[in-house]
Amino acid sequence: MNNSTFGMIFTKSDVPMDRQKFHFPNLNQGELLVKIKYATIWGSDLHTYQGFRLTPVPTILGHEIIGEIAELPTDNILHDYYGNVLKQGDRITWSIAASCGECHYCKIGLSQKCVNLFKYGHEKISDEHPLSGGYAEYCHLAKGTTIVKIPDNIPNKVIGPANCATATTAAAFRVGGDCAGKTVIIQGAGMLGLTACAMASSLGAKKVIALDIDKDRLILASKFGATETILIEGDDADVINEIKNITDAHMGDLIIEMSGISTSVDLGLNLLSIGGHIVFVGSVFTQPNVQINPESIVRGIHNIHGMHNYIPEDLATAITFLEKNHKIFPFEELVSSEFPLQDVDAAFQHSIATKAFRVAIKTD
Amino acid sequence: MNNSTFGMIFTKSDVPMDRQKFHFPNLNQGELLVKIKYATIWGSDLHTYQGFRLTPVPTILGHEIIGEIAELPTDNILHDYYGNVLKQGDRITWSIAASCGECHYCKIGLSQKCVNLFKYGHEKISDEHPLSGGYAEYCHLAKGTTIVKIPDNIPNKVIGPANCATATTAAAFRVGGDCAGKTVIIQGAGMLGLTACAMASSLGAKKVIALDIDKDRLILASKFGATETILIEGDDADVINEIKNITDAHMGDLIIEMSGISTSVDLGLNLLSIGGHIVFVGSVFTQPNVQINPESIVRGIHNIHGMHNYIPEDLATAITFLEKNHKIFPFEELVSSEFPLQDVDAAFQHSIATKAFRVAIKTD
Repeated sequence: MNNSTFGMIFTKSDVPMDRQKFHFPNLNQGELLVKIKYATIWGSDLHTYQGFRLTPVPTILGHEIIGEIAELPTDNILHDYYGNVLKQGDRITWSIAASCGECHYCKIGLSQKCVNLFKYGHEKISDEHPLSGGYAEYCHLAKGTTIVKIPDNIPNKVIGPANCATATTAAAFRVGGDCAGKTVIIQGAGMLGLTACAMASSLGAKKVIALDIDKDRLILASKFGATETILIEGDDADVINEIKNITDAHMGDLIIEMSGISTSVDLGLNLLSIGGHIVFVGSVFTQPNVQINPESIVRGIHNIHGMHNYIPEDLATAITFLEKNHKIFPFEELVSSEFPLQDVDAAFQHSIATKAFRVAIKTD
Repeated sequence: MNNSTFGMIFTKSDVPMDRQKFHFPNLNQGELLVKIKYATIWGSDLHTYQGFRLTPVPTILGHEIIGEIAELPTDNILHDYYGNVLKQGDRITWSIAASCGECHYCKIGLSQKCVNLFKYGHEKISDEHPLSGGYAEYCHLAKGTTIVKIPDNIPNKVIGPANCATATTAAAFRVGGDCAGKTVIIQGAGMLGLTACAMASSLGAKKVIALDIDKDRLILASKFGATETILIEGDDADVINEIKNITDAHMGDLIIEMSGISTSVDLGLNLLSIGGHIVFVGSVFTQPNVQINPESIVRGIHNIHGMHNYIPEDLATAITFLEKNHKIFPFEELVSSEFPLQDVDAAFQHSIATKAFRVAIKTD
């Protein structure tokens, strides 16, 4: 290894990212240096890049990252989530954020709300810890990061989005409860929605109904396990009636709302079965409020959950899910193109122009 | 036993209940005849009596009932929830409704939504099954009723409301999750709210904060385990700030909304901790809709649950809770007066005039 490396620095929308040199870090206890192999571009990266979302700058964007361990601290042994001893050359993915393990939220099992959260691809470059994003040669993992060794048989294209899209979807299913033999409705057939269709199918759902405003996405949803698809184009009453017909009026036992659009949230609340669960996942941006009828919620014994990011076990669930299912559902097709690191701006432009599910930066 | 008995028949509000003779039933498989000992008057009984709530008539009102087994079917052995063999003379309470055990809802653990529900105190008198309410000498238990033998040391006054108020409260805690070491907020300090304060306390909650619009109820809440009480009289912002101060800004981990008033539901949604659960219980009557902000729910990892009635295990939990706690909290004081069966109208009038938590009909 030379004593310096480079990363692509984001400072402002409409300004190309800047190639910048960094010294390799000295590793403290619990830290790792990873040689990045693959990093995908995710919606929040695009929003930041286009100026729709603020992030502290200068920064290295990118948080769906996989890589190989380049260096470990000499004085202590590190383990992955399953307790495997980590060693140089291991192909790994890791949690979107490091958590302190000691604050109130860490102690109550909500490590994604840690008050000392260190979030990859979202940190301002600092002297102590500059290499924190995916669009760089190396990433410096902080203490408190959940690491999972990647099974050999999973291609980079498949595992790339695991630590964001797949793990977040796994979190939604965790909170939504067992869906075996049940009717699952997925609102929004983007990357998370398609993953959710496949996950519902793999968990033994009786019916998986995908809703979207885009016909092509619904065609894809069918390849990802949706047993029925409904194009959202007109009156909600038609959708409600269609789902009544499909479900013998029982409606959706588990609904996962991935779009974040208020009209979709409102529709979802009207599709719940008695005793049903709806998980809001997509609502991470400002939208109009939605009305609820508490009496309907009581008499319907409804459950409404919000899920933001995920906890370590969800990342492990995500990897296991992809290991078992990536040949059953065409996950590999969702990464439509790969760019080298120095062409990261071209990759972003391509992603915006094509509305691809995922575009990847291949650093190999 | 003579071959006839009597019950008090409700036909219409503002008309006194009518004493009517009935023949004793022939017991079919799974059925029981109970000599009623005690029946309390509950809010829904009062609402029906006053004409605010419709019920099929003629009927025998009353569903918070306890009694002694008078007759069992000769050809089969019956058991209570715990598997105890039932015998003549056993003092029992039973579920507010009998469920078929075979429909979709029974099979998915929502027996309170059974499509063949037979609900005590809510059934129109029929030739086959006239004795279905609490304001009578006898009650004829249907097949599919959950029965619990009452431990000897619990007075009738305490156990009277067990199969409605206490069991419903237990259901709210079941769905709201473990509250040991947590902050619990109870909205509305009526019969259910006071029971909820005591239950939170007995489950090891760190703080139990009771909210009500009535000072006297809050004084009582303190006797039922509330560690803090807040009078609702002005701006919600003041309440929110007060709870911020009490909880070091963590807010309520578990909130149980017992009032059903939309302004209270709205306030509750603003009192949730990150990762918190709110259970709507009181919203069983028409109120204006309430606005939610899906982004707040996602980022706050909030959980909203509706709970209507309860399932068999909640009744068992309720009895165990009362057995262990009725001397710690003054449950006995909540039944303010007792009337004989023939004075049931006077009991209703007294209940309306005094706004008592509970008035009882003592049939002994």
